[in-house]
Amino acid sequence: MRILVTGSAGFVGSHLVERLLDEGHYVIGVDNYISGQRSNTELFLSHISFSFIEADVSQGIPYTGEPLDWVMHFASPASPPHYQEFPIETLMVGAQGTQNGLELALVHNASFFLASTSEVYGDPQMHPQPETYWGNVNPIGVRSCYDEAKRYAEAITMAYHRKRGVNTRIIRIFNTYGPRMRPDDGRVVTNFIHQALEGKSLTVYGDGSQTRSFQYVDDLIEGIVRLMKVNYHEPINLGNPNEFTVLEFAELVKNQINPELEIVFESITQDDPKRRKPDIGLAQRLLKWTPKTLAIYGIKNLYNNIKDI
Amino acid sequence: MRILVTGSAGFVGSHLVERLLDEGHYVIGVDNYISGQRSNTELFLSHISFSFIEADVSQGIPYTGEPLDWVMHFASPASPPHYQEFPIETLMVGAQGTQNGLELALVHNASFFLASTSEVYGDPQMHPQPETYWGNVNPIGVRSCYDEAKRYAEAITMAYHRKRGVNTRIIRIFNTYGPRMRPDDGRVVTNFIHQALEGKSLTVYGDGSQTRSFQYVDDLIEGIVRLMKVNYHEPINLGNPNEFTVLEFAELVKNQINPELEIVFESITQDDPKRRKPDIGLAQRLLKWTPKTLAIYGIKNLYNNIKDI
Repeated sequence: MRILVTGSAGFVGSHLVERLLDEGHYVIGVDNYISGQRSNTELFLSHISFSFIEADVSQGIPYTGEPLDWVMHFASPASPPHYQEFPIETLMVGAQGTQNGLELALVHNASFFLASTSEVYGDPQMHPQPETYWGNVNPIGVRSCYDEAKRYAEAITMAYHRKRGVNTRIIRIFNTYGPRMRPDDGRVVTNFIHQALEGKSLTVYGDGSQTRSFQYVDDLIEGIVRLMKVNYHEPINLGNPNEFTVLEFAELVKNQINPELEIVFESITQDDPKRRKPDIGLAQRLLKWTPKTLAIYGIKNLYNNIKDI
Repeated sequence: MRILVTGSAGFVGSHLVERLLDEGHYVIGVDNYISGQRSNTELFLSHISFSFIEADVSQGIPYTGEPLDWVMHFASPASPPHYQEFPIETLMVGAQGTQNGLELALVHNASFFLASTSEVYGDPQMHPQPETYWGNVNPIGVRSCYDEAKRYAEAITMAYHRKRGVNTRIIRIFNTYGPRMRPDDGRVVTNFIHQALEGKSLTVYGDGSQTRSFQYVDDLIEGIVRLMKVNYHEPINLGNPNEFTVLEFAELVKNQINPELEIVFESITQDDPKRRKPDIGLAQRLLKWTPKTLAIYGIKNLYNNIKDI
């Protein structure tokens, strides 16, 4: 198949490109490097089935090639420090970016795949979160540029599905980690790993009792590839329900990598969600999918991968 | 002052134009008539301080005149039948339309006023709703094209305020009624009044126990004009907290207009909010504002107004 991936130089996007190329598809990557990394494009440039367009998908997707089978929209700043640095760009890639992808899919009679996020649940009052939970998001907080952009992206994807007949998919990605995350990603896994690499103390925001469920990127990509083959249009959670408090996770990193590390506490950021954990019953039933990577393996793998660069 | 009003041919927009002209301002109206009515433009065309641009603000606001003091963004389909007929246009006027207004304000160093809605609260689980309530909105339901567009509009307005320094205002308008609503508006007040005028039965959806708080348009406009003079950037509820069940409201219309009318029940539409009532403490404190029009007066006034056309 011929598949256009926006955000191809991002963390998740680059792993998706790799998998699609491995499966024999032709992939057109698009990125503007606002948060993606050029090194993630360079990985594939010599591949005969990969081509790349440097463009801001919020302004339009300048693809004029042969017909597409899929438009997969993975472009967006995704870590709080990045989207808070670029709030307007983050809002635009959720609205205009998503719509440009949907219009491109419409022109090519292609299917459209939206990478949404567990952040649509905000600071959830239901735990774990099934797809039917409507969320608890502050529409005017400093995180709203991301959360509301993704909620909007879901709404316009459903509108194109219902009104224009586009064959759509929506996933809500929970915290994911793995190689090729930006060192300055700012989220807890990369922070801990890089702090550990540099022999620094591990920083926990708040008292560390907020929970996260960390999914290794290979598991996520497996879920994405499975969903492409299933005709289901409403959002599907993809995440690892194995829940850690941030403090437990710090201790896991400390124990696995360097028992000498200290753990320090800093004040929590605005609207930081206190708990988040996916209900993955739907993905299990529909995709026969379940995350396989244990946190201990994932952390060691990530640590070794970064150490070797 | 020189004030550009998007959605000037809409119900609320046209009352705002009238008030601003009455106060001696110069007003540029913009509308594409997707839900606005040409008759609402014709009302002011002979006024020396009014000019009009027919344009879709989602595509851009083609204003090239003298500097503006205000950009007031009131364009959007607002009734469920309309926005469900035009879901993509409704999403766009919330995203691109709002952003085009913010950019125009930025160019002119003008202030920006966003007409948001109580629909950002969705089907609220807190009652009444203060501005600090984050809402309960289904991001993928058939109403999400409106609800999520307005939440996005609030988020991007706050982003332009925080990041670009635009002087912004946000109001959340609760159910409002009055002259110049479209006869096919589809919301309960116009439905009842038009059914009463035609001697038809009054249609209640569901069992009629869902509540609404109905605000007469003159009260809303007074609140808007007051907020323009106050430097406050977070959302403010404008609505009448006097709560009726839909059934009580039907009975009020019946008693005031024609005691012979029957009340009939039909099945409820998807995601129809069960209760909504503003907490207007903030507007009372900040604007010294409180809605003054009693429902009995408002209904009779509206009935007489429509009857005379």
